[in-house]
Amino acid sequence: MSTTAPSPDHILQTGLAFWASKTLLSAVEMEVFTELARGPESLESLTGRLGLHPRSSRDFLDALVALGFLERQDGAYSNTPSTNLFLDKHKPSYVGGILEMANRRLYGHWNNLTAALRTGKPQSESPGEEDFFGALYADPSRLKTFLRAMTGISRGANITIASQFPWAKYKSAADCGTAQGDLIVQVALKNPHLAGIGFDLPEVAPIFEEHVEANGLSSRVRFISGNFFADPLPHVDVIMMGHILHDWNLEEKKLLIRKAYEALPEGGAFIAYDALIDDDRSKNAFGLLMSLNMLIESPGGFDYTGADCVAWMKEAGFRETRVEHLVGPDSMTIGIK
Amino acid sequence: MSTTAPSPDHILQTGLAFWASKTLLSAVEMEVFTELARGPESLESLTGRLGLHPRSSRDFLDALVALGFLERQDGAYSNTPSTNLFLDKHKPSYVGGILEMANRRLYGHWNNLTAALRTGKPQSESPGEEDFFGALYADPSRLKTFLRAMTGISRGANITIASQFPWAKYKSAADCGTAQGDLIVQVALKNPHLAGIGFDLPEVAPIFEEHVEANGLSSRVRFISGNFFADPLPHVDVIMMGHILHDWNLEEKKLLIRKAYEALPEGGAFIAYDALIDDDRSKNAFGLLMSLNMLIESPGGFDYTGADCVAWMKEAGFRETRVEHLVGPDSMTIGIK
Repeated sequence: MSTTAPSPDHILQTGLAFWASKTLLSAVEMEVFTELARGPESLESLTGRLGLHPRSSRDFLDALVALGFLERQDGAYSNTPSTNLFLDKHKPSYVGGILEMANRRLYGHWNNLTAALRTGKPQSESPGEEDFFGALYADPSRLKTFLRAMTGISRGANITIASQFPWAKYKSAADCGTAQGDLIVQVALKNPHLAGIGFDLPEVAPIFEEHVEANGLSSRVRFISGNFFADPLPHVDVIMMGHILHDWNLEEKKLLIRKAYEALPEGGAFIAYDALIDDDRSKNAFGLLMSLNMLIESPGGFDYTGADCVAWMKEAGFRETRVEHLVGPDSMTIGIK
Repeated sequence: MSTTAPSPDHILQTGLAFWASKTLLSAVEMEVFTELARGPESLESLTGRLGLHPRSSRDFLDALVALGFLERQDGAYSNTPSTNLFLDKHKPSYVGGILEMANRRLYGHWNNLTAALRTGKPQSESPGEEDFFGALYADPSRLKTFLRAMTGISRGANITIASQFPWAKYKSAADCGTAQGDLIVQVALKNPHLAGIGFDLPEVAPIFEEHVEANGLSSRVRFISGNFFADPLPHVDVIMMGHILHDWNLEEKKLLIRKAYEALPEGGAFIAYDALIDDDRSKNAFGLLMSLNMLIESPGGFDYTGADCVAWMKEAGFRETRVEHLVGPDSMTIGIK
């Protein structure tokens, strides 16, 4: 084998990438980064405080160093600037909710990927359950984990939309399927002239209101409870749905787009963002993998391309559409009525 | 958030990297690459032949394209040069054994990483079993998966050792804990003057002999059965152990090194290779994660640095030692008696 021969490295690295993944997930579960946000600590001190067994505590912490999530100097471990900002539970910038959910639920469910691919059926707690969100919202501890997870995976996109979209043209906005409300919160923080609404099932109200209040927005951002399939959407200038459309099957997706169209005034805008698959379906691996995650977690959800979403919006009547990249794997599709 | 602010991308990508990992593992399990080694196929044909459900077969195959494991042209999927060479079960270059083992065993066991870190105890099938290899070798189907897996993860290092080590100086070599025998096979293929021995438990003999015969080496490479703790090692010029030392606890590691020393003549060489952790324990993440894998899979195993191994070899009496990088994460420590 010469040095120009193909190498199995990429294959083996990807095939065993769950080692690095699960190591980070366990570190988040054990709150390694929250602990170290207090200051650097020695191996002995961390082993004791985190309840690690000495057999492998050093390997575990050094693996986090080698993976770029911790630093180690003169035997003392500390957070990197990134993990200090994003994985300390006590900071509002915490994005670990999605990793807590991945650790508690998704990692195990994905062990059944082959069965999901063979049957087309979800592999979550109750594989037969048809009403995924109904069951989720009925369980307060699952709901809280889920809503925090959604904030974790959406923060970057939310902040980008808050500055990238031409908000000066509009006076009001509603985030439908708002969860903790981080999208409407970020948009309202950046645009003091806007009145905002978070729309979601009633169970979400207290969690939403806590987040809005923590951001000092209670006077401008309010909660409206409703079911976006059964009830009309709020009448506002801009309707947003972040990581919503991909949860549903094709008919449900089209229904939500039609309801957004109906609720908007002439000239109003609908913003739908997701981890859009590139139109050639060959580059944005994350979008495609997210679609497999929807297979595993939901009865009919799937991710889609910008071209798919543009076609659905045109079919619903939107006269002008465009796709804009946000951050990481996320892009938004915008429809103007 | 300005563009210079820290981003949670690396955190989220690593935390969800098990998606890509499990997608590849399921593809290996369903023999996608073995099927496509016959030639390019359309989505419809592949969906039928692989027994995929139409809900997500396109997402699954396109995810493999986006991850770099398949190509797609004019709607026909085909292997990449790499997956065609390394993931087609019918080729001797197949390295998928390690991924089959990862898919059947390791992925699920790693779901218990937190418990392993808290208790120091393995999390494999029978967490209490003290005799890991005894149980493994007693189950022919587990044994075959394991031995093929070892060839998959060792092939690159084996080929490198066959050309990188100064074999001209030596007449005979034994690979202790030889498994399928790929190390001694590659060394013998490249060095026609050498007589080779594979040393392992008796259950391994037929699998070893099949591999040696397939490579046309039956006249120069033979099997000796034995237990490397209980029995003396073969008297040869070079003793090798590939991915062996990391399976055992410190006392067992030192015993194996001492036994290699005792079996060698003056001037003989001992080669031990593993995914060596860098001496600073901050760079070779794979070696550190492999050590966590040993925590999960074995009662006392752990990976180690080149400096660790040099110290153990010197303690055993080797007069000269050196560490040489092989390929990917693997390096070898050489001791000259």
